[in-house]
Amino acid sequence: MNKKEMVVNPYNVEGEVNYERLVKEFGLEKIDDKILKKIKKRAGEIHPALRRGIFFAGRDLNWVLDEYEKGNKFFLYTGCGPSGPIHIGHLMVWYFTKWLQDKFDCELYFQFTDDEKFLYKNLSYEEIQKWVEENMLDVVAVGFNPKKTHFIIDTKHAGIMYPEAIKVAKKVTFSTIKASFGFNESNNVGSIFYTAMQAVPAFLPCVLKKKKMPCLIPHAIDQDTHFRLTRDILPKLGYYKPASIQCSFLPPLGGLNGKMSSSEEIKGILSTDNANEVKNKINKYAFSGGGATIEEHKKSGGNPEIDVSFQYLKYLFEEDDNKLREIEKDYKSGKMLTGELKKYTIEKINGFLAKHQERRKNAKNIISQYILKA
Amino acid sequence: MNKKEMVVNPYNVEGEVNYERLVKEFGLEKIDDKILKKIKKRAGEIHPALRRGIFFAGRDLNWVLDEYEKGNKFFLYTGCGPSGPIHIGHLMVWYFTKWLQDKFDCELYFQFTDDEKFLYKNLSYEEIQKWVEENMLDVVAVGFNPKKTHFIIDTKHAGIMYPEAIKVAKKVTFSTIKASFGFNESNNVGSIFYTAMQAVPAFLPCVLKKKKMPCLIPHAIDQDTHFRLTRDILPKLGYYKPASIQCSFLPPLGGLNGKMSSSEEIKGILSTDNANEVKNKINKYAFSGGGATIEEHKKSGGNPEIDVSFQYLKYLFEEDDNKLREIEKDYKSGKMLTGELKKYTIEKINGFLAKHQERRKNAKNIISQYILKA
Repeated sequence: MNKKEMVVNPYNVEGEVNYERLVKEFGLEKIDDKILKKIKKRAGEIHPALRRGIFFAGRDLNWVLDEYEKGNKFFLYTGCGPSGPIHIGHLMVWYFTKWLQDKFDCELYFQFTDDEKFLYKNLSYEEIQKWVEENMLDVVAVGFNPKKTHFIIDTKHAGIMYPEAIKVAKKVTFSTIKASFGFNESNNVGSIFYTAMQAVPAFLPCVLKKKKMPCLIPHAIDQDTHFRLTRDILPKLGYYKPASIQCSFLPPLGGLNGKMSSSEEIKGILSTDNANEVKNKINKYAFSGGGATIEEHKKSGGNPEIDVSFQYLKYLFEEDDNKLREIEKDYKSGKMLTGELKKYTIEKINGFLAKHQERRKNAKNIISQYILKA
Repeated sequence: MNKKEMVVNPYNVEGEVNYERLVKEFGLEKIDDKILKKIKKRAGEIHPALRRGIFFAGRDLNWVLDEYEKGNKFFLYTGCGPSGPIHIGHLMVWYFTKWLQDKFDCELYFQFTDDEKFLYKNLSYEEIQKWVEENMLDVVAVGFNPKKTHFIIDTKHAGIMYPEAIKVAKKVTFSTIKASFGFNESNNVGSIFYTAMQAVPAFLPCVLKKKKMPCLIPHAIDQDTHFRLTRDILPKLGYYKPASIQCSFLPPLGGLNGKMSSSEEIKGILSTDNANEVKNKINKYAFSGGGATIEEHKKSGGNPEIDVSFQYLKYLFEEDDNKLREIEKDYKSGKMLTGELKKYTIEKINGFLAKHQERRKNAKNIISQYILKA
């Protein structure tokens, strides 16, 4: 069997993801010490996902941080495609975004792309709307500042979104879409138009406040296709190119390739999983980097680089660098067994999710504070 | 020079328009005595544009009239692309639509396709909005029943339009658009999406009133491309196929081919032209079917079929069939000279426009009554 060619775009992630190659092909800047220093200067600390190279690349980060120092504050823009339950891959990006909001005291525009999911998935309009309601609970549960966070639901906010989207759309041809997303003539005309809607939150605040402002988009690397296009167009409309800060994919349970998805059969760890479900999923499905037998593991050790449990700790659930290093060392040496690593990971995930779910329970009552008034 | 091949679609009208061929190619039904009888039964009369074969074809007219008799009333849907001043070609369709509204006591949904014109024309968003304001004055001046007429401005009503448009768009591929409108890959993605927006008013009233209702669309034949597509999709969404009643093009001043356009250099007769402007345009530009000299005309007569002044009387300005027949006879025989025909036509147009302009003056104060509340 031939190895699958790498494909990474918002509608397709295939093959082994080579991040170094993506940085080159997409023309991204890697996050270096200079950028980390600038972030630390303002934030007082460096978020674990930055220290660990999970958010590892971006665009115009130096510029957006320099503008911030000059008093030209950026706003944040991120989002969610509502077509299924929320998993820990989503949460990783959103908790990081919350950290940015807190440290930089930013407005956040959070887009729910219900039109996109309706146009691309085999789901009814009503099913998608159900997922919007469900997913909003999770976003609220992250704990964003309700005074500074504004939910945009594409269909609900179409009154302000569509008039701006056509200004973008007028400058994008089908050839461009075809080349960028790998589309063909069988794509529906809504999906062909859609990227124009995803561009809008990168300048909508400027429209609403009648003010040119920098924008910073935290997102997983597959969304870069949309925002490369957005960056081409926005200067033509009189706005800044949006800056971005991009992360690698939190690995699926079964192994390190691809990205976690809500629509796979084994759905990964969901935001609503109870302690027992988490335990079963990790024990049963989380790919192990350990030795084939306990004896072999004790002798030769395990490989944390490909061990999904270890990666989950690294990506989201173990904030303490010393503890993470200790686990890495012990697992590598064979001192820590796979069973022990899984047990620890399960505890950490469940501790994290217990708090998330507690806030999620109360989310319904405060959602309305988050919806953008327009 | 080769004769130009006939092209008739919403974005291109070229060559000599052969209506018989269009009826066949588009698969239209010609309006026959049976249909006229059904209209007369309810309306008490037959509108001159029907008697004279100007509104000459349609789709599902028998069905929509039969449903009406059963108490299943249709609503009307027509519109305006706001990218320039209103000419008498527009007015012809709208005054006919008013007649339908009055006689059949119908709700009318009137769409201003500002998104379309922005996406297709080399005009700024602001210029298009200026034309929306201007064009609305003319539509109000037609005298539609304000209690039963609802203006939809695509960008202003995007909040209700876009969520419905994506339901249409999901069922239309780029190949279909390409074949229907003669597009290619250089078309912008907004223009590719747009037909989905034009489909919406054909079922929006059903959404708003939660009720399946027949729709009748009076329009010029070039718009049939949009509505052929609309008719394919709507049953898949649970609505009736919209019926239509279609007219030929009011001839441009220069001669009978093509259709009048607001963006040509010689703009045709505009709704805002004063008496002197009308006089100059008819005298200077209106193509004459008369003889080369007065002597020749007196001897061999003129040809009303190709005489633009005569055609204007026939299309809109002479309601009296006897008078029209008399003019036709006298012009054909050479008894009536071109100068006399032009003079009469100028008087009729100016009489018509004086009343229209009187209502137009007052239109601004009552526009708000017409805008769809949503």
